[in-house]
Amino acid sequence: MAQVNAHLSRSETLSLLSLFLACFAIIANTFQGDGNPLIASLAFSGIAYCASYAMIRWLGNTFMKAGLKGKDMGRKSLPEIPETMGAICAVVYLLVIIVFIPFPFYKDIVAATSGGGNRDVIRKTQQIETGRFLQRFPHSKLASYLSAILSLQSITILGVGDDLFDIRWRHKLFIPAFAAIPLLIVYFVDFGVTSIVIPTPMRPYLGELFDLGLIYYLYMAAFAIFTPNSINIFAGINGIEVSQSLTIALLIMLNDLLYILPPYIYPSSFPQPHPATDSHLFSLYLLLPFTAVSIALLQHNWYPARVFVGDTYCYFAGMVFVVVGILGHFSKTLWLLLIPQVFNFLYSAPQLFHFLPCPRHRLPKFNARTGLREPSTVEFKVPLHPLKEQVVKIAGKVGLVRVTEAKDEEGRRRVVECSNLTIINLWLVWFGPMREDTLAWGLTLLQAGCGLVGLFVRHRLAGLIFTADNL
Amino acid sequence: MAQVNAHLSRSETLSLLSLFLACFAIIANTFQGDGNPLIASLAFSGIAYCASYAMIRWLGNTFMKAGLKGKDMGRKSLPEIPETMGAICAVVYLLVIIVFIPFPFYKDIVAATSGGGNRDVIRKTQQIETGRFLQRFPHSKLASYLSAILSLQSITILGVGDDLFDIRWRHKLFIPAFAAIPLLIVYFVDFGVTSIVIPTPMRPYLGELFDLGLIYYLYMAAFAIFTPNSINIFAGINGIEVSQSLTIALLIMLNDLLYILPPYIYPSSFPQPHPATDSHLFSLYLLLPFTAVSIALLQHNWYPARVFVGDTYCYFAGMVFVVVGILGHFSKTLWLLLIPQVFNFLYSAPQLFHFLPCPRHRLPKFNARTGLREPSTVEFKVPLHPLKEQVVKIAGKVGLVRVTEAKDEEGRRRVVECSNLTIINLWLVWFGPMREDTLAWGLTLLQAGCGLVGLFVRHRLAGLIFTADNL
Repeated sequence: MAQVNAHLSRSETLSLLSLFLACFAIIANTFQGDGNPLIASLAFSGIAYCASYAMIRWLGNTFMKAGLKGKDMGRKSLPEIPETMGAICAVVYLLVIIVFIPFPFYKDIVAATSGGGNRDVIRKTQQIETGRFLQRFPHSKLASYLSAILSLQSITILGVGDDLFDIRWRHKLFIPAFAAIPLLIVYFVDFGVTSIVIPTPMRPYLGELFDLGLIYYLYMAAFAIFTPNSINIFAGINGIEVSQSLTIALLIMLNDLLYILPPYIYPSSFPQPHPATDSHLFSLYLLLPFTAVSIALLQHNWYPARVFVGDTYCYFAGMVFVVVGILGHFSKTLWLLLIPQVFNFLYSAPQLFHFLPCPRHRLPKFNARTGLREPSTVEFKVPLHPLKEQVVKIAGKVGLVRVTEAKDEEGRRRVVECSNLTIINLWLVWFGPMREDTLAWGLTLLQAGCGLVGLFVRHRLAGLIFTADNL
Repeated sequence: MAQVNAHLSRSETLSLLSLFLACFAIIANTFQGDGNPLIASLAFSGIAYCASYAMIRWLGNTFMKAGLKGKDMGRKSLPEIPETMGAICAVVYLLVIIVFIPFPFYKDIVAATSGGGNRDVIRKTQQIETGRFLQRFPHSKLASYLSAILSLQSITILGVGDDLFDIRWRHKLFIPAFAAIPLLIVYFVDFGVTSIVIPTPMRPYLGELFDLGLIYYLYMAAFAIFTPNSINIFAGINGIEVSQSLTIALLIMLNDLLYILPPYIYPSSFPQPHPATDSHLFSLYLLLPFTAVSIALLQHNWYPARVFVGDTYCYFAGMVFVVVGILGHFSKTLWLLLIPQVFNFLYSAPQLFHFLPCPRHRLPKFNARTGLREPSTVEFKVPLHPLKEQVVKIAGKVGLVRVTEAKDEEGRRRVVECSNLTIINLWLVWFGPMREDTLAWGLTLLQAGCGLVGLFVRHRLAGLIFTADNL
């Protein structure tokens, strides 16, 4: 059995150790003084990075011994490397956001436990001085924060189960639905807000707010099922699952900062705390450590990969976005950051729903001679229905798919093969064979580009259909 | 590879299906009308039983395929059977208590969402009519309920990790400590009650209440580390892990009913709702489904076992008792129900802490000729230190251990072997070899007897050192 290098080099050890100690010092300081939870969150993220980085290396061989391993089809030697390493990131992440709980609720603790009406007054003065950046969650949000952790723990348990037992596709699809149950139930018990703001042109007919009731829960469930699965099917080459998730997380954090930073920089223009600030702080608290563990994982999963991430990571990443979107009430904005995933899902649909044959694996083919990746194909052993054949031919002509035709016994030209319907294969059809890391870079930049355009649209053009932007 | 019979017999299918439908009908009814959460909890427990029973059968072969299997050392043929099946019970249990969340909080939902000060008034009247049995949690307890689920999910993740990766003993010990973190942190943020009632004779010196502060958290952490581990080391024969947990759960529920039932039966004698009722309802809501999944597991784990429960189950069961004890503020009472576990731990300590040699497995020996279990022994290859030898000899004389002596080269009688220090071996030393199920029955009755005496002491004699019993 191949062995993973479990040993951290001296420079790695030193860097991780100094980062860890620095972060630890910051947290100790935050806890004693008038800690800003955002600074604490950054420091916790640093610790999460160190812990994930070290544990991915230390536990690689343990995972392989337990049978959690896979062959890397993208290299000549087909090396066996550890699988499901996303579970390490998930567990480190969960531990960190659990230990983080007291920080955003610090104010309430001080007021409640150290018998200080006095200290409370001091705190309030300081808050005015330092502005809204120091704002902490109201205590009532504790339940929603806990429900987020519950859903993330659920997806971790179910994701590991999936990686262990290789659950069938049609069952797999519903894993995120089960994991979303605690989130939706606490939403139901705790908020129950199911109204949406109606776009201006439709207000004469529907009013300003419209209560969707049950439909809103169905929408949230659909969002929770779609996001993790869409990340899980946008996979197949080293690093792509983590790099897309990391890009989405960075874009959501950029969006959060658009709400949090301006009042901090120009306090005079924003006399009132913005009602959405809390939601976006919440989002940062959940996404900063996620970004940290993802970076540690990406360093080991980028081409040439030393570990695989497993379905666990894809589901977990997707569920982080789901809880952030639902509890922050900006799931609409999130759709704009998932454009490549939505496209990939729609593009894959003919194969996923078996209108066209779907092989077990659709990842791009490795050409051992050139060392490059090429589009993988599906062969139509049974001739296609003429209508389907026509559609495939047209798709081939407009460049949406690479089609191979051949003459059958009666001399008619028939479609015998086409490239598999994934965005990764389509990229290779368009831009030709390329090395695995170039491919991953291209798709990551596409993700970033689509997301930036999406955010621009959301903040500049939303005013046309809604009276006031939330920003 | 051996195959587990995954097929449910027709009578099993019919019984499970009718129980499931009956429970489902009860829940549907509870949700529409003026549901009593305790009835709903009973119905959910029925569903949990059906689901665990069926899934233990259906998933046995899947677990074996994933490498989660073990040899039963208690039978001649050494059959291989699925391991870690406690994980199924844990996942079913978690799903059920998550879906149960809205039931105890139903009142708040009605008041908050259906715009009804009016409906709220009606509800209050009904509550007075039907007595305290209908009482529901105050909404503020949602966070503590969620923290209980978080800790139980954590122990499930870590327990499965332990079963997969075979973590070393000295690391294993701290698994429950990690899992208890969410419980203790939310306790810190949400309650922060760290005072204890001082026994009457000491009040002149310490006052009526004494705030332990940090020490109370250390106590809770120690309780959380001890309980799951003590159940995990009281193991080694078919059924014993589940039967002891089931006995403890039933005894805690008996204790809960001592608080809940009397005011329900004699409402006139108890005009005021007792402040501890909520805690004991909370305990019932968590223990009823636990009892249900444990019964389903015991039916498959009792001698001759068709499945093993895994460390996952032991940790999980222990953590259920920890959350119930800590959040219900009756951890002191719980110690009285853990007498056999405490004894087994103290009795094992010389081997656990390596004062005496400790073999990898200490389960009783199977005698293939008689088909009975006999005490297993540890051989002292290196002669014992004279002091240790004296202690072992004395223990042997008072019947606490079976000692084998032999003459060494110099003709001195030396201790060369003794029975392993577990309560299971001690039972066999005392009562002679017996079949595995007789042994399990004996130890279960011991657990029940000790617990009943413990509860009697707690409720009848506590008045001697405390002014007023909580009851």
